[in-house]
Amino acid sequence: MADELVFAGIRDLGARFRKREVSPVELTETLLGRIAKLDPSLHAFVTVTADRARADAKAAETALLRGDARPLLGIPMGYKDIYDTRGIRTTAGSALWADRVAEDDSTCVARLQAAGCVMLGKLITHEFAWGIQSPGHHFEPARNPWHRDHIPGGSSSGSGTALAAGMCVGALGTDTGGSIRGPASFSGIVGLKPTYGRCSRAGVATLSWTLDHTGPMARSAEDCAYLLQTLAGHDPLDPASSREPVGDYVRALERPLRGLRIGVPRDFFFDGADAEVTRAFETAMATYRGLGAEVRDVTIPSIWDSPSFMVIMASEAFAYHERDLRERPELYGDLLRERLLSGALYTSAEYVQAMRLRERLRNEMLDVLRSVDLLATPTSPKPAPTFAAMWDASLGFPRSNTPPFNLSGLPALALPCGFASAGLPLSLQLAGRPFDEETVLRAGHAYQQATDWHRRRPSV
Amino acid sequence: MADELVFAGIRDLGARFRKREVSPVELTETLLGRIAKLDPSLHAFVTVTADRARADAKAAETALLRGDARPLLGIPMGYKDIYDTRGIRTTAGSALWADRVAEDDSTCVARLQAAGCVMLGKLITHEFAWGIQSPGHHFEPARNPWHRDHIPGGSSSGSGTALAAGMCVGALGTDTGGSIRGPASFSGIVGLKPTYGRCSRAGVATLSWTLDHTGPMARSAEDCAYLLQTLAGHDPLDPASSREPVGDYVRALERPLRGLRIGVPRDFFFDGADAEVTRAFETAMATYRGLGAEVRDVTIPSIWDSPSFMVIMASEAFAYHERDLRERPELYGDLLRERLLSGALYTSAEYVQAMRLRERLRNEMLDVLRSVDLLATPTSPKPAPTFAAMWDASLGFPRSNTPPFNLSGLPALALPCGFASAGLPLSLQLAGRPFDEETVLRAGHAYQQATDWHRRRPSV
Repeated sequence: MADELVFAGIRDLGARFRKREVSPVELTETLLGRIAKLDPSLHAFVTVTADRARADAKAAETALLRGDARPLLGIPMGYKDIYDTRGIRTTAGSALWADRVAEDDSTCVARLQAAGCVMLGKLITHEFAWGIQSPGHHFEPARNPWHRDHIPGGSSSGSGTALAAGMCVGALGTDTGGSIRGPASFSGIVGLKPTYGRCSRAGVATLSWTLDHTGPMARSAEDCAYLLQTLAGHDPLDPASSREPVGDYVRALERPLRGLRIGVPRDFFFDGADAEVTRAFETAMATYRGLGAEVRDVTIPSIWDSPSFMVIMASEAFAYHERDLRERPELYGDLLRERLLSGALYTSAEYVQAMRLRERLRNEMLDVLRSVDLLATPTSPKPAPTFAAMWDASLGFPRSNTPPFNLSGLPALALPCGFASAGLPLSLQLAGRPFDEETVLRAGHAYQQATDWHRRRPSV
Repeated sequence: MADELVFAGIRDLGARFRKREVSPVELTETLLGRIAKLDPSLHAFVTVTADRARADAKAAETALLRGDARPLLGIPMGYKDIYDTRGIRTTAGSALWADRVAEDDSTCVARLQAAGCVMLGKLITHEFAWGIQSPGHHFEPARNPWHRDHIPGGSSSGSGTALAAGMCVGALGTDTGGSIRGPASFSGIVGLKPTYGRCSRAGVATLSWTLDHTGPMARSAEDCAYLLQTLAGHDPLDPASSREPVGDYVRALERPLRGLRIGVPRDFFFDGADAEVTRAFETAMATYRGLGAEVRDVTIPSIWDSPSFMVIMASEAFAYHERDLRERPELYGDLLRERLLSGALYTSAEYVQAMRLRERLRNEMLDVLRSVDLLATPTSPKPAPTFAAMWDASLGFPRSNTPPFNLSGLPALALPCGFASAGLPLSLQLAGRPFDEETVLRAGHAYQQATDWHRRRPSV
């Protein structure tokens, strides 16, 4: 099957399914073939659910013949292995859950499958979603399809790798400090962290209650809009789930960009950025000006209060893992165990102070978003590092521009905006007002109509 | 001046001002006279601002003559001594702030004064608002006007005493675990804890960021509605202040009660309740049925998770006071110092778990409030204890029904619903949906149209 089909988007595939140019069964077989060929060296999948995929594809084909018009019908998906899937092992990348089989689908998986998606399998995650891609891992780490010596980003590493290498059409990720947007950035795909509370976390392993987000990953903003349309909405099973009305994300893509106001926070987000990253970002802003948007600098004074992120995340993760850490410490990787135990060292007063800083940061962002419609930053100040560099860094993380939007809960999209001279993808981050995923996706889509960075493919 | 005028409500006073039956200056002089006579034994006031009151009253009188129609014009108020007042000492009941004079009015005081209120003075509070009324206090404790051997409730103790004894028409209180509703209950007046974020906390000493509420106290639900109308609304100076639109609280009082659904959570709120309390409550429910409301039992399974309240309050209060506790521990009362230091003993993980229980409780309440419009409970399971009983209890608090609505942030009104055989007031608590103060106040007002508990006066 031609690459054109393997890398096609959801709307295009739906049209081709209905014109009988290709069937969900054919597409699924092609992708299973690519997985069999590519995954032994790329390691995106923990579990390939080939039988389930074939059954889902067959059912979709039957429904298509009956005239079923739902846009996700027959779309092959991969699910980060932290989303529960009924009857199929969910490991969260941990030895602790090596044999764990959930009794129910997570809400997000259930919604996509009920909408007609095809389940290709479960995608690798860093252990319990805290980390990028490093030693001490229960599974072989996923590789970056653009350069296998480089990390694909994490913790939704398998999702980024599988999408970039054309092994699935859409995927689910989770994002506590950037675990959707980081892999999107390093692997050259598109990831949306929706507003806190927009997509259900029921049936998804917790890392940090107040920072965790679920969301879609794909190869275009348009595909993210299609997936979000099905994922978004209240879920009584998730206590933090919002009752805010769901937008019309797909239709919003059609609205013109003219008059959109984009704010660029110059502090923090450009600190230590490679010249190539800044250059690609400025070129993207020029593209937006050409599309009729207004781009101006804005200031978020508390943006430097980032240590509050680690106090909150470590405290909440320790609270969640405390019992298992006491009873079965040997089943945690050394790296994760150290990170989790750091959360035992904070007092409640320190956590309270971190939450206060967080509230101030969020309020400053909301203030800025009264005079602009979106914030734009580079997603990462540098392209993907090598595995060797990550291992040298030991406990450290590459500096990231993603956590401020976990602290504030605002929707944030990462999308490709160029390439570094080493051939590694660069990425633009767009953040919007609470529950205004429509504007975020619309701006991403307009950019992708005007550019073709998201249409470049790695040679795999 | 006749008691009828001393105890008149805001609407009635406005009409009499405008008919020249009485002037703000006359009313203010009468109240200053009552304060001079009664307060040496009741101890409601920390500071009486007689000159300011006379100037405010004169200004109101001039404005009335010009035809100024604002409803709070000339209404004499007392402010809990935890609300900053420009140029007038604000002690928070503490030796630490014994000589503290703020440079600006708190937002709530500023709004009431800008609306034409008369400032009679500052009302006593338990030290930094954590406590009811107990030894180790920097000031002489306020006395309950119904029986001076009994506590008036706290921490807004001066506000309850001053209103019950006819020393002011309205007052400001704060409520972290019941500090508005407790004094309302024990002193036989009306207190509203609005929704979290509805009224500004700027310029008010912090006890606990996520539990603190400011709000009005008065002698009727109607008067609370008039005060809330001026107090409610976004304040950029308070990071937790909501942008939710402000209701029309006064007009809402006119809407009939027919069809209102009241839910009675039978667990927890009746635990250890005196038979007299339960009887008065059931009589109130019969009154509501007579007014056309439907009363039914409801269940809130997590209502017993009340220890989470103390973990959150102590942790947050310790975080706020930590520096002063290290530098000037001798300026704290023994009781408060012990309570604050208890907050140093919690880990961040314990706080996180408490916040999770809190979220579950809130969600359960919101679920119940989808099938009923209000929750009704006794405000306190027993009437006001004696000072002697409180001192015996040392660090303890009488069991209270108020903290669950600080945890959930829902609006809650306390209003008189009878008397115990000892002649002490009993109280009904009505709680509603977030930002639905209209329904809470409307139900309180309808009850007060049909009963006269709130018109009984102590002999002082």
